[in-house]
Amino acid sequence: MRILLVNVNTTTSMTETMAASARRHASPGTEIVALTPTFGADGVDTAFESLLSAVGVMDVVVTYPDPFDAVILGGFGEHGREGLQELTEGPVLDIAECSAHVALMLGRTYSVVTTMQRSVGAIEDRLLTAGLFDRCASVRSTGLATLELERDPITAFDAIVDQARRAVAEDHAEVLCLGCGGMAGLDEAVAAATGVPVVDGIAAAVTLGESLVRMGLRTSKICTYAPPDPKQITGWPLSAPPR
Amino acid sequence: MRILLVNVNTTTSMTETMAASARRHASPGTEIVALTPTFGADGVDTAFESLLSAVGVMDVVVTYPDPFDAVILGGFGEHGREGLQELTEGPVLDIAECSAHVALMLGRTYSVVTTMQRSVGAIEDRLLTAGLFDRCASVRSTGLATLELERDPITAFDAIVDQARRAVAEDHAEVLCLGCGGMAGLDEAVAAATGVPVVDGIAAAVTLGESLVRMGLRTSKICTYAPPDPKQITGWPLSAPPR
Amino acid sequence: MRILLVNVNTTTSMTETMAASARRHASPGTEIVALTPTFGADGVDTAFESLLSAVGVMDVVVTYPDPFDAVILGGFGEHGREGLQELTEGPVLDIAECSAHVALMLGRTYSVVTTMQRSVGAIEDRLLTAGLFDRCASVRSTGLATLELERDPITAFDAIVDQARRAVAEDHAEVLCLGCGGMAGLDEAVAAATGVPVVDGIAAAVTLGESLVRMGLRTSKICTYAPPDPKQITGWPLSAPPR
Amino acid sequence: MRILLVNVNTTTSMTETMAASARRHASPGTEIVALTPTFGADGVDTAFESLLSAVGVMDVVVTYPDPFDAVILGGFGEHGREGLQELTEGPVLDIAECSAHVALMLGRTYSVVTTMQRSVGAIEDRLLTAGLFDRCASVRSTGLATLELERDPITAFDAIVDQARRAVAEDHAEVLCLGCGGMAGLDEAVAAATGVPVVDGIAAAVTLGESLVRMGLRTSKICTYAPPDPKQITGWPLSAPPR
Amino acid sequence: MRILLVNVNTTTSMTETMAASARRHASPGTEIVALTPTFGADGVDTAFESLLSAVGVMDVVVTYPDPFDAVILGGFGEHGREGLQELTEGPVLDIAECSAHVALMLGRTYSVVTTMQRSVGAIEDRLLTAGLFDRCASVRSTGLATLELERDPITAFDAIVDQARRAVAEDHAEVLCLGCGGMAGLDEAVAAATGVPVVDGIAAAVTLGESLVRMGLRTSKICTYAPPDPKQITGWPLSAPPR
Amino acid sequence: MRILLVNVNTTTSMTETMAASARRHASPGTEIVALTPTFGADGVDTAFESLLSAVGVMDVVVTYPDPFDAVILGGFGEHGREGLQELTEGPVLDIAECSAHVALMLGRTYSVVTTMQRSVGAIEDRLLTAGLFDRCASVRSTGLATLELERDPITAFDAIVDQARRAVAEDHAEVLCLGCGGMAGLDEAVAAATGVPVVDGIAAAVTLGESLVRMGLRTSKICTYAPPDPKQITGWPLSAPPR
Repeated sequence: MRILLVNVNTTTSMTETMAASARRHASPGTEIVALTPTFGADGVDTAFESLLSAVGVMDVVVTYPDPFDAVILGGFGEHGREGLQELTEGPVLDIAECSAHVALMLGRTYSVVTTMQRSVGAIEDRLLTAGLFDRCASVRSTGLATLELERDPITAFDAIVDQARRAVAEDHAEVLCLGCGGMAGLDEAVAAATGVPVVDGIAAAVTLGESLVRMGLRTSKICTYAPPDPKQITGWPLSAPPR
Repeated sequence: MRILLVNVNTTTSMTETMAASARRHASPGTEIVALTPTFGADGVDTAFESLLSAVGVMDVVVTYPDPFDAVILGGFGEHGREGLQELTEGPVLDIAECSAHVALMLGRTYSVVTTMQRSVGAIEDRLLTAGLFDRCASVRSTGLATLELERDPITAFDAIVDQARRAVAEDHAEVLCLGCGGMAGLDEAVAAATGVPVVDGIAAAVTLGESLVRMGLRTSKICTYAPPDPKQITGWPLSAPPR
Repeated sequence: MRILLVNVNTTTSMTETMAASARRHASPGTEIVALTPTFGADGVDTAFESLLSAVGVMDVVVTYPDPFDAVILGGFGEHGREGLQELTEGPVLDIAECSAHVALMLGRTYSVVTTMQRSVGAIEDRLLTAGLFDRCASVRSTGLATLELERDPITAFDAIVDQARRAVAEDHAEVLCLGCGGMAGLDEAVAAATGVPVVDGIAAAVTLGESLVRMGLRTSKICTYAPPDPKQITGWPLSAPPR
Repeated sequence: MRILLVNVNTTTSMTETMAASARRHASPGTEIVALTPTFGADGVDTAFESLLSAVGVMDVVVTYPDPFDAVILGGFGEHGREGLQELTEGPVLDIAECSAHVALMLGRTYSVVTTMQRSVGAIEDRLLTAGLFDRCASVRSTGLATLELERDPITAFDAIVDQARRAVAEDHAEVLCLGCGGMAGLDEAVAAATGVPVVDGIAAAVTLGESLVRMGLRTSKICTYAPPDPKQITGWPLSAPPR
Repeated sequence: MRILLVNVNTTTSMTETMAASARRHASPGTEIVALTPTFGADGVDTAFESLLSAVGVMDVVVTYPDPFDAVILGGFGEHGREGLQELTEGPVLDIAECSAHVALMLGRTYSVVTTMQRSVGAIEDRLLTAGLFDRCASVRSTGLATLELERDPITAFDAIVDQARRAVAEDHAEVLCLGCGGMAGLDEAVAAATGVPVVDGIAAAVTLGESLVRMGLRTSKICTYAPPDPKQITGWPLSAPPR
Repeated sequence: MRILLVNVNTTTSMTETMAASARRHASPGTEIVALTPTFGADGVDTAFESLLSAVGVMDVVVTYPDPFDAVILGGFGEHGREGLQELTEGPVLDIAECSAHVALMLGRTYSVVTTMQRSVGAIEDRLLTAGLFDRCASVRSTGLATLELERDPITAFDAIVDQARRAVAEDHAEVLCLGCGGMAGLDEAVAAATGVPVVDGIAAAVTLGESLVRMGLRTSKICTYAPPDPKQITGWPLSAPPR
């Protein structure tokens, strides 16, 4: 099967990091196609950037020329999933919801450790509207912007572990989710430092996406995610003729 | 004061309908500047179109050349408010939240009568994340698309009154909200047909926006809606150099 | 238009403070009529006093001889609004709900800073039954009784700022509400000390009340707030023949 | 032990009906003292009347000359309990909360059958603030005012049974609560007609009140229900010098 | 009347402690029959042990040879109540729900002080599914296992008081519940140390059970708790032929 | 990898049906070991039977002699998962939670179609404590007992489709879950009849379980699901010496 993994920012090095993580967890026979939007910000930390990314992500998916079986959106709390669900047939998953799904299977409660405090609200809202917030013990911020994760990985790791430990000790989290696509690959080290299972969102999304495709299940088209009726749309798609 | 009223679709006749309604309710001394996005769909009924509209709306606001005091987003359940809150200083209001605020001041519960069933979820989510969903008795669909409201106003009115009456009789709604910017101007007729107060979202947003400006209150910049840090952004703004 | 502003306690100096604040925020053409109950306590900090105040407030409103357009109840978490909604036609607003409405328009979450810890529950319940509690980050107590605010304003201000700063730092409040009519006029100083918007309940209620009246909207009479059927009522009204 | 049973309206025949029911369920050695307010309405169906009743009830309790062990408030959704909890030492219970407590012990869900639709909101709010609403399947109205229950008991009974059956069949209620003090004594007949346990609020409050007194438990005075600090109170008590 | 009091563990000394507490609070004429399961663990601190206890408890009740009026389950957060409700006619109560019922009658909020942190989730879930969690301020752990309460009562008492005081000071609990059957008898000492009412679950269950029996109320058999249809059951009952 | 699939009743033909479904969806290299308890009922429709099944299931797992990687519990709303999570290292999943996880990935809301009305509460509680209930549109009953599904599959199918269609039309469910292990294999036919995706719980659990094992994730042992400390346990295990 072919899974499109779409970064939400325009930084190709981050796309590559995610793609490597995705390929490490994919089953034999699963092809991971990593896409980077050509519209939007090089890091997504705000609602403004998140909304740009939603359009950038939809653009790169609708102009992808070949068939595919599922889409993974590499943003933790970013917009865009619902739009993609309307525009495609196969399952569309984002790494926030997939992290929460997996976390709920492993422990009674989970916490998310993310980047900046200003992003906490967006993640809480995403989990709330996904119907997965009830067992969330906390969403904690390291104070670091997305791009700082790449610039200074050692400081970033220390900040993540610090908040992760507090989530376990103070919020009674039993599982941890890494709340940014840019934290891909840190799961084992954070698990070693805290003694609890740590969910990597990319790994979660790849394996859950494969599960859905293997079961032959696709997005429900009965109502909310039915294909849009034709409209007059100006300026779309941004980069190329649609499929 | 100057208030920007931004339509979420590209249909200028709808912008004009909203603007007329806004000007009817504005205080002397309030200038309503009506803006239409140059990017996006001519009617917004889906998440795909809503996400396009968010970018279109942000684009038309950031490229507006003159100062302004507040922004009103003319979409009922559409994306974009949070992005605008980050990008501007003055209050940003959308007509869904303003309708709900006003409705809560007038009765114990309220219902929303909107366009298509597929939009109900987006409106419920918008009210939920706005913290205004607890007293919502129901969000009811007429089955009509946004653009059909203009094309066949008599059928539309009958469908709205039918659902409005059910909301009152079956869901015990005490106040009704018209759940689409394209329903502007129907409030009095629906009130006459149902015997309950009916809130027009544009009127609500204009008067509440004026209230905030008169009190000198602006969007909190302490955390979620702080201005974005500078990023490398590709393809933005869509239409012109930013302010 | 004429707005009745009703204090919930019998201390006329507090009525005057509130009235001054109301007049400062009222539009030209709005007359603020400030009323003080002749029944009840000189400060309201308990359920007992709050229930007395509800009757005192209804008494002073139903015996007011002239027409009016709206009523503002100057209590933060006090009883009485629902009774007044039944007894009058125009909108009835209390300063707790109006503060929360305005706060929700300005930031993602809000906190209330109020007087004594024993009043926190009443405020939480008021916000809950008003359908406005979901985005309340906290209700914090200064430990001061209502009447102490007048007696020692400097200590009171320091205590308010202390709790306000904690609400921002620890509870991630993005907007603050001053949770007592007696705190009217402190909003700008608290905003300066904390860096977040601060809502004055009297100002909020006056401007929102004006908005409703300008839109021609009145309390829904379809069910909960319909006029009471005639009953045999003993001892009522307390002070004079009813209108 | 001595229990004060306080009617919320001024109709002494209703007080006597309640008192008879209370005495039927009281243990040997429990004295039921039935009190009727001298202030307020002869039937309570609205918030206005409920707030008057709260003051009437507090008045008749604080001017009662002898010691007592507990207070039962005979209103289903009426105001006043919190005030009485501040003013007295022993437990204060109202029949709405006691009905819900007992219902939760007997089945997975319960419904309330009450008088007028306009009272449904007050009952829901009372159960919500009592922390007992989660398992409430519905609050259903018969459309009858409180005083109509006495005037036409056969019609009233039929209307109650009709709503009771719907609560069981449509809302999956497993236990029923009679949502008005004036329905005292109908529990067995409604149980026979529906096949589910029916809770009489007076019986529930008397037996639960006795349980608390026997355990030596009294209202918590640590915070919310501490005795009010002395204030200047005008016009209080209404009927006689306080204890 | 005869009430079966069933311990959830196999430690007969704990059964006796509970029985003594129950008899101290029972009315004259109430016979307390204390039963100890012959299957399961000598202390219940985990879900595994709780599920064993549910079967042990059902076994000892269905093989009890004589009639009885009510059953009290001596576990705080343990499984089994629903099964017993199906298997018997009279009321079945557990000490967790009864503690919460009583606590809600005495103050605005309550906290539970229990044994190990690992049991907190089970207690929260029990209160949630009982519909009694809304006003729970916290469930706090002493870090002690059930059997340690008996082994070292002085250390246990100190740990309980420490957490009880924090519940009052930090969580604003107004009433405390002792969250383990093995804490029976400590209520007065903890109340003296904290200044708030403390509920002993056994006392609460005995007096509430008596109340229900006196009112002639039994478990609703309309749906969830109807007697099971006959099935082929292997290995049941564990200890003797059923009634 | 080896996955234990444990039926919750003692009917081996149902175990075989589930095992066949599981093997159909398992990846190459996954061994499905199907186990049937030797204790409990031949069909589980009640809390009594569910609690027996929990012990029967734990017994058959702890006495299974060989290593395994994950456990799937074939009950929809039955007890036992938490106990198994304490007793084993690898992931433990039940088909109710797995169905809900998959459903949430495919549509905005889901409904469950199950057997008898009396089981609806248990399923709702299971989804609630799993943190997956928020987006559940309804749990609907066909009125059929578990064993009737096998006895009369055509009637059963019709009843399931009838409720499934109502869930879509009346409750706006966008995805359906088959709420009983005995409905395994009907998913495609129900999907064809309703036009929405239908989740088979066994398929969901097998593929999700494989995902977790492939990611190397195991149950969190930090708190709630830590291994039980040694206790004196009478009568356990039921069938053989433990591992």
